Amino acid sequence: MEYELGRSFLLRAPEDAELVSFINEFAEKKGIRMGIFNVIGSLKKAKIGYFDTNEGKYTVIELNETHELIATMGNISLKDGKPFAHVHAVLGDEKGNAKGGHLVEGVIFVAEIFIQELIGEPLERKPQESGLALWDEERT
Amino acid sequence: MEYELGRSFLLRAPEDAELVSFINEFAEKKGIRMGIFNVIGSLKKAKIGYFDTNEGKYTVIELNETHELIATMGNISLKDGKPFAHVHAVLGDEKGNAKGGHLVEGVIFVAEIFIQELIGEPLERKPQESGLALWDEERT
Amino acid sequence: MEYELGRSFLLRAPEDAELVSFINEFAEKKGIRMGIFNVIGSLKKAKIGYFDTNEGKYTVIELNETHELIATMGNISLKDGKPFAHVHAVLGDEKGNAKGGHLVEGVIFVAEIFIQELIGEPLERKPQESGLALWDEERT
Repeated sequence: MEYELGRSFLLRAPEDAELVSFINEFAEKKGIRMGIFNVIGSLKKAKIGYFDTNEGKYTVIELNETHELIATMGNISLKDGKPFAHVHAVLGDEKGNAKGGHLVEGVIFVAEIFIQELIGEPLERKPQESGLALWDEERT
Repeated sequence: MEYELGRSFLLRAPEDAELVSFINEFAEKKGIRMGIFNVIGSLKKAKIGYFDTNEGKYTVIELNETHELIATMGNISLKDGKPFAHVHAVLGDEKGNAKGGHLVEGVIFVAEIFIQELIGEPLERKPQESGLALWDEERT
Repeated sequence: MEYELGRSFLLRAPEDAELVSFINEFAEKKGIRMGIFNVIGSLKKAKIGYFDTNEGKYTVIELNETHELIATMGNISLKDGKPFAHVHAVLGDEKGNAKGGHLVEGVIFVAEIFIQELIGEPLERKPQESGLALWDEERT
């Protein structure tokens, strides 16, 4: 789907807030229905998900020490009529080893967030047989 | 090189398509000559490359299980007169361990792709002594 | 904070330049006070940092072999009145294993850099008790 570029935001989210909820709440408050974002910073703890196609659900890996939030990217679209952030994140431990996956939740130490609003027909997430909620496919 | 922002696209690529080819075909179909993109999702299998500077070619690492496609970024420019996507990707396994490099190819389970077209003088990839095809360097 | 989109740049930085300094110098030369960027390529060597909240400083991990620069993202804002790039990077070795964190410095083999200028009230980094230099928090 083709979009126009809307508003751009760069900000630091509050320490101890939960990152995924923060992005959802920010989008709702600002009226952002579609967008993309990225984040760098550090998380005090995190739950990352690996989608198990056999089980049809996410396996959750818990990281209970502070990790660098190295590369976080995602998009905002509609789910059940409300803005919904889909967030993926790479995290690094004190030896620099990288872990990552779908970000289920993360408690912020530092989060510098860039959000770019997209203007146009919203994409809507719909439940699939796989267990995921996805947009319709677009073919070339 | 300085560019204007062109069209913006957010879409879900089809399951079982090959991600690198999909981006190349999408760019060609839409007439995108320059751009940047990022992707999140999940790949059923992937080949990632590490460029070996001694050998002058990519060592290829094959991942044959489904991995989260955590952070994928790249650019579109011209190679042999056609749009060419240079794609790097971080992938995560069921324990959250991250692997990555140059994405040689990846079979899509889910791929949510953002593409931003750039308008201006195209950068062209030219073969180098190193074995890579690169743009001219730009100095500050 | 809300911004307008300014100039867009896509370029290849010179081999053997240091990546963080290059972005800072590029921003200063072009008069970019706020922005975001991402980079893909390969580094000959790199120092990555993990912020140790107990020590209030970065633990530095040195990577002395060539690594793929898989996913690099960051932002430009003001520190001591000058443009300052905050850079995070995921790097991959010859087996595809990923490491990463805050990029302290990296010697470029190849670096393809996208920079998007943001126009508006600049964010300024101010020293915190934690030892980091951060923007003010923004609440939803």
